[in-house]
Amino acid sequence: MRKSFFVLSFLLTSGLLMAQKEDSVFIRAISDDILNNGKAYEYLRQLTKQVGGRVSGSPNMVKAENWGLKTMQDIGADKAWLQECMVPHWVRAGKDVVKAMARGGSRDLDALALGNSEGTGGKYLTAPVMMVGSFEELEKRKEEAKGKIVFFNYKFRNELVQTFQAYSDAVKYRGGAANAGSKNGAVGVLVRSMTHAVGNNPHTGAMRYDSAIQKIPAIAIGIEDADWMSQEISKGTITVSLSSNAHMLPDTIGHNVIAELTGSEFPNEVITIGGHLDSWDPGEGAHDDGAGCVQSLEILRVFRALGYKPKHTIRIVLFANEENGGRGGDKYAEVAQAKGEKHIFALESDAGGFTPRGFGLTAPDDMFAKFMSWQPLIAPYGASDFRKGGGGSDISPLGKTFATPLAGLSPDSQRYFDIHHARSDVFENVNKRELLLGAVNMAALVYLVDKYGM
Amino acid sequence: MRKSFFVLSFLLTSGLLMAQKEDSVFIRAISDDILNNGKAYEYLRQLTKQVGGRVSGSPNMVKAENWGLKTMQDIGADKAWLQECMVPHWVRAGKDVVKAMARGGSRDLDALALGNSEGTGGKYLTAPVMMVGSFEELEKRKEEAKGKIVFFNYKFRNELVQTFQAYSDAVKYRGGAANAGSKNGAVGVLVRSMTHAVGNNPHTGAMRYDSAIQKIPAIAIGIEDADWMSQEISKGTITVSLSSNAHMLPDTIGHNVIAELTGSEFPNEVITIGGHLDSWDPGEGAHDDGAGCVQSLEILRVFRALGYKPKHTIRIVLFANEENGGRGGDKYAEVAQAKGEKHIFALESDAGGFTPRGFGLTAPDDMFAKFMSWQPLIAPYGASDFRKGGGGSDISPLGKTFATPLAGLSPDSQRYFDIHHARSDVFENVNKRELLLGAVNMAALVYLVDKYGM
Repeated sequence: MRKSFFVLSFLLTSGLLMAQKEDSVFIRAISDDILNNGKAYEYLRQLTKQVGGRVSGSPNMVKAENWGLKTMQDIGADKAWLQECMVPHWVRAGKDVVKAMARGGSRDLDALALGNSEGTGGKYLTAPVMMVGSFEELEKRKEEAKGKIVFFNYKFRNELVQTFQAYSDAVKYRGGAANAGSKNGAVGVLVRSMTHAVGNNPHTGAMRYDSAIQKIPAIAIGIEDADWMSQEISKGTITVSLSSNAHMLPDTIGHNVIAELTGSEFPNEVITIGGHLDSWDPGEGAHDDGAGCVQSLEILRVFRALGYKPKHTIRIVLFANEENGGRGGDKYAEVAQAKGEKHIFALESDAGGFTPRGFGLTAPDDMFAKFMSWQPLIAPYGASDFRKGGGGSDISPLGKTFATPLAGLSPDSQRYFDIHHARSDVFENVNKRELLLGAVNMAALVYLVDKYGM
Repeated sequence: MRKSFFVLSFLLTSGLLMAQKEDSVFIRAISDDILNNGKAYEYLRQLTKQVGGRVSGSPNMVKAENWGLKTMQDIGADKAWLQECMVPHWVRAGKDVVKAMARGGSRDLDALALGNSEGTGGKYLTAPVMMVGSFEELEKRKEEAKGKIVFFNYKFRNELVQTFQAYSDAVKYRGGAANAGSKNGAVGVLVRSMTHAVGNNPHTGAMRYDSAIQKIPAIAIGIEDADWMSQEISKGTITVSLSSNAHMLPDTIGHNVIAELTGSEFPNEVITIGGHLDSWDPGEGAHDDGAGCVQSLEILRVFRALGYKPKHTIRIVLFANEENGGRGGDKYAEVAQAKGEKHIFALESDAGGFTPRGFGLTAPDDMFAKFMSWQPLIAPYGASDFRKGGGGSDISPLGKTFATPLAGLSPDSQRYFDIHHARSDVFENVNKRELLLGAVNMAALVYLVDKYGM
């Protein structure tokens, strides 16, 4: 009994060791191929320089979809197609202008209308400024807001080491400033940009109007301008003239762009990997989320290059609309449900193409334990920090529909809010090796999920 | 007996927990102060923009020393002084030129004479090129080398995830190409730059001549030019004309710049923290090693700002000469020995101002175990990867002299060889938060060493 136990445990252990060895060899092959022959950086150059910024519903999104589909076909996907979905269609329609007249002189602020906002139809709206540090302050001083342009000067918290925490803390002002202002009779709102970056680069991003509210203009300004306003307001009243042509058009047709490697054993069990193809317009959507798109394409490329035949169906999805609607992810889950597909795992890269630091996973404990057991195989490639909690906006509907375990790549976050939704989100600010290493770590995780299931 | 054991173990455990709590609170205070009020980025702006590149022996080094001393005094060091040491004095003395005449046309290569090399005195040296991939290949084909310019085209290995491994693998060609060429009758050498960066940016760095050897010119070229040469050579002979004014002058006077917070309990037991003040000349020495210098100064600043009174003497040292001699570190250890000081710990930051990933420590096992026990306190600030083996060139003489445990900060290495010894090593390529976070992690480690000893 004891002897057979030892024999059995020897066989199990040696089998496990052999499997681990095989896995580490294959992951090394993935890494070597991507670091030496990877195309993600070249794909990103094409997407950013031949297409550029890609707001949902824009002509650039049509170009980007065609580019994505052709790239998938060129790589050699088993299937590649466009999946139609209706998307919001917001347009900036020209330059946003904010001029401030203060005691110390006047100043042209560096400004970007927030996404989804309604501008002034190009006319100038002039009003005195009321500065507040928070919603709570506005609530206390709400009698003063009527007829004013309310300036929300809430600062990004530098001391939060993980910058996404600072973003979560501050972004409610981008999303909700117009509602809070309008409810109290303000005629427009200005918002301090969601960043702690050096410089005065304004950052746009989605806002929303509550249904019953008067739609007032909502504009982000650079943080040096915000600091200047704050100083000037301490000396006396500031008047601002602002103009924006931004407006929402009727919903239009967009597409998720999808490639598939069909599973050899479980063709109806799907692993989804993706990022979102849409972006804001001031930059080129290089990190947000060109990086996630091209890293996903790189996984398709490297699996083809290494002749890897997945057991499960692997789908690469470039989602149609994340920034101002989440319609791409919704449509993908809806079609999957209608077709009776089984979605066993989804992985998103939507936190920039920076050096990989880890993965987050949202899944039950048994799956999380399995995920943790893979950490030693992946850590040598940089994504060593395996944590609970993760996913991405585009794949979250899969979680709701199928209880699919959801993972997100966690790149280093220190530089992300230097570029997020800003002019600086361009190809030149993406580092080739960092981008490729992200794809290495993602491909390694997908390989392990495909081999062992979740 | 059992009861008193439990009481004792309860007291020990609760004491330990209280100490850990106190440590985590103090480290949080360090982090909050540096991320909100840190000056390292401003110091780096001064060092790079008011001084610039700083080769040992250059007028810029004198400026940098004065700046360092004044900054230390302004921060409020207990003492600050210059420690004289003789340093090598190499000068580039103008533009390095390499023109290649090939079948497909001629090309001006982007070139930088290697540090310590002797140029042509500004005259043109013209000779056919012999390309080799390695020292071994030169050895096999050595009969061909006579009268030629030997071009060492050894490539940085992309597939090595840790870029310092690729550097260690390749840098022997920078250091030894001239000796290998000269020994076989070559009249000059060209070296493919030590980088895998995108672009054609040449990277300089130290080379050395063996004592009995004819000193031939040694010049680094950009990697796109290296690839072009390689292609052209496959089609037929290339002739190169090169010119460089580089030369070595007699040794001159330099200084280590030193600040001290005198220990309250153990004034003769020293903890040294530093980086090297000298740099190569094409850029501004921003990452290499302005970053290490200003992070060290930041530790002095934050300890002063928080009113921290160290038990041990803490020294900040901006070393006089690392790049082409290591004279600063040698002198510092020599003086310490002569004075009978005790050096209990040294920490260097000389791997760039990028996002911190860990620390390496060279120390006996018991000290290493203590170091590992601190990992959970530091990991939340980014430097989670605690490893065996670490230190830095400038502090290594302390290890030899006193068996001092030596640690090195390990920032993320993916971007380092984009800028190392190249024109791109400028302030603009340093990220403020990444730089400050490095200082946070260093200050936390120094605090723990000071409190608990090594």
